[in-house]
Amino acid sequence: MTINAYAAFDKSSELRPFTCESTPLGPNDVKVKVEHCGVCQSDLAMMENEWGVTPYPIVPGHEIVGTVDRVGESVGHLKPGDTVGVGWHASACMTCSQCMGGDHNMCSSAAPTMIGRHGGFADNIIVNSSFAVLIPKNMNPRTAGPLLCGGITVFNPLIQFGIKPTDRIGIVGIGGLGHLAIQFSRAWGCEVVAFTSSPSKEQEALELGAGKVMNSRDEDSFTSEYGTFDLILSTVNADLDWAAYIALLAPRGRLHFLGITKSPLQLPPAMMMMKKQISVSASQTGSPATISKMLKFCERHGIEPVTEHYDFGQINEAVERLRSGDARYRVVLSND
Amino acid sequence: MTINAYAAFDKSSELRPFTCESTPLGPNDVKVKVEHCGVCQSDLAMMENEWGVTPYPIVPGHEIVGTVDRVGESVGHLKPGDTVGVGWHASACMTCSQCMGGDHNMCSSAAPTMIGRHGGFADNIIVNSSFAVLIPKNMNPRTAGPLLCGGITVFNPLIQFGIKPTDRIGIVGIGGLGHLAIQFSRAWGCEVVAFTSSPSKEQEALELGAGKVMNSRDEDSFTSEYGTFDLILSTVNADLDWAAYIALLAPRGRLHFLGITKSPLQLPPAMMMMKKQISVSASQTGSPATISKMLKFCERHGIEPVTEHYDFGQINEAVERLRSGDARYRVVLSND
Repeated sequence: MTINAYAAFDKSSELRPFTCESTPLGPNDVKVKVEHCGVCQSDLAMMENEWGVTPYPIVPGHEIVGTVDRVGESVGHLKPGDTVGVGWHASACMTCSQCMGGDHNMCSSAAPTMIGRHGGFADNIIVNSSFAVLIPKNMNPRTAGPLLCGGITVFNPLIQFGIKPTDRIGIVGIGGLGHLAIQFSRAWGCEVVAFTSSPSKEQEALELGAGKVMNSRDEDSFTSEYGTFDLILSTVNADLDWAAYIALLAPRGRLHFLGITKSPLQLPPAMMMMKKQISVSASQTGSPATISKMLKFCERHGIEPVTEHYDFGQINEAVERLRSGDARYRVVLSND
Repeated sequence: MTINAYAAFDKSSELRPFTCESTPLGPNDVKVKVEHCGVCQSDLAMMENEWGVTPYPIVPGHEIVGTVDRVGESVGHLKPGDTVGVGWHASACMTCSQCMGGDHNMCSSAAPTMIGRHGGFADNIIVNSSFAVLIPKNMNPRTAGPLLCGGITVFNPLIQFGIKPTDRIGIVGIGGLGHLAIQFSRAWGCEVVAFTSSPSKEQEALELGAGKVMNSRDEDSFTSEYGTFDLILSTVNADLDWAAYIALLAPRGRLHFLGITKSPLQLPPAMMMMKKQISVSASQTGSPATISKMLKFCERHGIEPVTEHYDFGQINEAVERLRSGDARYRVVLSND
């Protein structure tokens, strides 16, 4: 099967049209006709080989919404015409204890959608059918793409750590991830405080559901809020004063990292985390079952990414827009 | 009421006899006649003002086993003659959400037994009756003292983090805390691996219940065990290669710090903790309710600290023995 895609051929190149043959459709696979695909910071990181694992040419794209075109012979739960989403992972081994326990995203063989196969900057993709998640009927497929990676990244901790509607949550960084984290936490019933260093985002954060906005770099202003946060989600790639954020946590509080940073984490002495039994943790993406839960939660609560749209033909413009840091808040390619 | 105690008068001094008046017995207090008292690393740290908070003269001692001598007028659950234990905390506010939620040890007003009052290196102490926990009938009071601080410190994480008997646990450091952590984890039904840099402790660790012993400083030997530990409890005060320990963790694994270190925690980039959703955390001691659970668990499983005993009159010898690092494994003062 022929794939018409856009690929990066080296770390500095623009994306250029690229035609290739896909792997054959396996018995558990589905072929999806791509209709929309979000552009994510990790697409840029992979294009630029920031993590040193990029196989060129690479077809990025892992926030895919499309229509099932063909199904493998063993697939019974999806049919041609279904609208589905595909995120960071396109398959996993399906037999290890992580897969069997519902943690497919932690399978050591979990295959990223755009590594070792071609991603969503293409007219079609083939993925394991368990990783193509049904998009709910009342959800707008045009804006759903960013939920498949950015969305699940910030939704997953709420599930994983048993966050309760009585909890107070801090969201650090109001961008592609943060603007969704505010909406999720608010709909979860929590008190939400947004931390940003951009005064221009203050009003937007309040409109998205934050009850209060604080300056993420003015640690002196934190003192009156010490000991009040049950969970702080950091979505930034910057190295902030993490000791100051840990001081904000309530007993049993957790500082959780979602921003993919390469610099070592500088924490205060363990002694400073003992009295309140503080946890520091990190995660990425989530399992297909959690993605499905998230999509239904979004449908029910009217949660929608704030997006800017580009045609697939304007793909390099779209990438530049994301790179500029000015996008509000996610960039999506659409075959409108 | 007169207290005959041993106090440190400055950071370099030996303990010397010290007589003082105790606070009056409040309606919710009990007066306990001290019979045994463990000597803990944190007694040394406080005597030497290592944490900069020591009020001299200080009467150390917070692993106390004794007999209730008098009870305050509102105390109904204890009576004279009862054998009780007192650990790191002697009281808390009893009204904040931590106290009301069962987390008295995380109350911001929780009062350490030996700060702002006199500790257990004395003939008697007065504490809030809720912090005097009944010693089970079939437990040896002579060796129970170290459970009240060292024991609860390593037992508490098993309760707090819902550790399951199917989990694999690593215990780093086989000393006063570690030798109890091995016994608890084994009785919990877990697979236990001890990490030590002392070859002399290998056989002892196996006898205490470890299934395997690894060299805590030979990170090259870790590779074959990568991804296999659900929980690693660090009881050491040294700065080890924490990235190597994090690599040992299974998906959802946790590296938990119990050693009171003052140096900042150097962790790998958050990126290295994401794929497996790793948590890093710290805690100290536990609530009175958890201490009570622990004591009954010890009674039922025959868990007992390995102790060396000194008379109260040999108190400076006992302190020196602990300081030497050669004690196996806890030093206890006894009024035998």
